[in-house]
Amino acid sequence: MALSIEEKFDLIMRNTQEVITVPELKKLLETKEKPAVYIGTAVTGRPHVGYFVWGIKLGDFLKAGFKVKVLLADLHGALDNTPWPLLEKRYEYYSLVIRGMLKGIGADLSNFEIVKGSDFQLKKEYVLDLLKLSTFTSINDAKRAASDVVKFGDNPKLSGLIYPLMQALDEVYLNVDVQYGGLDQRKILVFARENLPMVGHKPRVEFMTPLIPSLTASGKMSSSDPNSKIDLIDGVEEIKKKLNKAFCPEKETTENGVLAFMKYVVMVRKQDTKKEFVVERPAKFGGNVSYKSYEELEKDYSEGKLHPMDLKTALAKEIDSMLEPIRKEFKGKEKLIQEAYPQK
Amino acid sequence: MALSIEEKFDLIMRNTQEVITVPELKKLLETKEKPAVYIGTAVTGRPHVGYFVWGIKLGDFLKAGFKVKVLLADLHGALDNTPWPLLEKRYEYYSLVIRGMLKGIGADLSNFEIVKGSDFQLKKEYVLDLLKLSTFTSINDAKRAASDVVKFGDNPKLSGLIYPLMQALDEVYLNVDVQYGGLDQRKILVFARENLPMVGHKPRVEFMTPLIPSLTASGKMSSSDPNSKIDLIDGVEEIKKKLNKAFCPEKETTENGVLAFMKYVVMVRKQDTKKEFVVERPAKFGGNVSYKSYEELEKDYSEGKLHPMDLKTALAKEIDSMLEPIRKEFKGKEKLIQEAYPQK
Repeated sequence: MALSIEEKFDLIMRNTQEVITVPELKKLLETKEKPAVYIGTAVTGRPHVGYFVWGIKLGDFLKAGFKVKVLLADLHGALDNTPWPLLEKRYEYYSLVIRGMLKGIGADLSNFEIVKGSDFQLKKEYVLDLLKLSTFTSINDAKRAASDVVKFGDNPKLSGLIYPLMQALDEVYLNVDVQYGGLDQRKILVFARENLPMVGHKPRVEFMTPLIPSLTASGKMSSSDPNSKIDLIDGVEEIKKKLNKAFCPEKETTENGVLAFMKYVVMVRKQDTKKEFVVERPAKFGGNVSYKSYEELEKDYSEGKLHPMDLKTALAKEIDSMLEPIRKEFKGKEKLIQEAYPQK
Repeated sequence: MALSIEEKFDLIMRNTQEVITVPELKKLLETKEKPAVYIGTAVTGRPHVGYFVWGIKLGDFLKAGFKVKVLLADLHGALDNTPWPLLEKRYEYYSLVIRGMLKGIGADLSNFEIVKGSDFQLKKEYVLDLLKLSTFTSINDAKRAASDVVKFGDNPKLSGLIYPLMQALDEVYLNVDVQYGGLDQRKILVFARENLPMVGHKPRVEFMTPLIPSLTASGKMSSSDPNSKIDLIDGVEEIKKKLNKAFCPEKETTENGVLAFMKYVVMVRKQDTKKEFVVERPAKFGGNVSYKSYEELEKDYSEGKLHPMDLKTALAKEIDSMLEPIRKEFKGKEKLIQEAYPQK
């Protein structure tokens, strides 16, 4: 049951924030049987359930007939403060949990590939292009491009300026038609588009999904506490504990990380698998209720017919089942987490 | 007639401005039969007679038993504004004239080698070290290190910040014990010394000769006009013409580019070859006079016994004979100069 070009387009575009440019994306779908897309993630902190937002979108790309590559950018991790000696173990860890995540989504992985940054970013042609690009890029432009992504700190390092140039070149050397990233990547994606032609490469389609509030943010204005995030290898008790602390005000549907996760992850999966999201409640609280779409759920929530605690309880079960394939993947490799993230 | 360690040391140290550190240099001479030294020159503008200052010093190193490498830094040329398409031709041109220059000095070239930057600077290990170094180097430190060497201009490019890091790593990958440069290189040399240990490499001895006033500067405060410089392939008429315009005030021995060239180049060669510098004059102007050492010449000059015009005439002949081997090397390859430096 091959999808039509329109169906492919609609699938890719759902929950999408911005595409540079939409006409180019359409033309790509019309002219190329199997286009290629990549998303890169620098190996830095521990992957958390927020990764499912792009995992789900990669599922859309796969269904739309794309070749999908996840770049595990080990060198970018180091350029953004991951200690060099931990790089390899973090790469191994990312590789494991991200593969598990995509399995968990139920994606057909025959057109999926994980690529390690240092496997191609140290090649002669790549480095020559990097140096070339550096002669056309002002220090200011490099800094601006990196500003939403790199943690520069008080004494910004040169590595942070090299970061966006390498990300631009990754599009070329991964041989993709589309780069996909969260909206925080926008400046780098635009940099890539504007500057690749300076070194003789064609610009690619830049594709962005929105940034959503953290699932487990403890309050609107609070900076995200890394320890509060639901880890991809957390067990059900940790999931419950962390979700319980999540900021999820009654009836409030914007700036609500729990609802956002429902919208961008859980309900997308439910719809795609033609299942319903079931909230189990004692009869005295209204009894069980189930939802076919996010819109139905949001409506009930905004009207106070669905209580945050009931939603959280149901979501915890959902996340637990999503993480099961990852924990399975991780079985027998528990030492890796200590090696990649040694306790101080 | 092998030199003693003291003789080697004295030879290397003549006309030298600064060594970081002298005890390390002494220890090197004491412990290593054939130490290695390199000087790098980015392939940018046309090499001129000022290059003889370091050419002469390389001769000293060769006589002192060093392995001597000249790095023709093509990539550094591009990082400092040489257009990428001209890089290869400029490299060829530099290679030709610099080899000719060292032949002209009469150096024994059996321990001499020209190395092309891009032949090793794009190798995996080098690039990995470059990225590592960039994570330890602040943007400010990189900019400071490069400030006396790179032409940053109004809109500084990222390439100029990468420049000093690569120069530091060149010491390692050229496998040398000493880096030699003009005093303008000081900040980069100190950067290398301080930062190589951050990426696991030992610091090298940094060796500097003074910056001397341009031979053909047209006045004390004037910025040097590139067209006024004596080119390594100039003929005798051009040499005379350019020397005639050189700023060389009577009796004035400091800030005098003509005298500086006599001191650092011509009289060193004369002493080494046990020849005299002969100034031919009509009898009415005092007749011929000849000098065994720079000190003798400077004394006469400061006392008005040697007139600038007579000095210039004699120097023109001297330079003409120094350039003869270079012109010979260049014979039949005249097209190269147009390809490397196309007229606008």
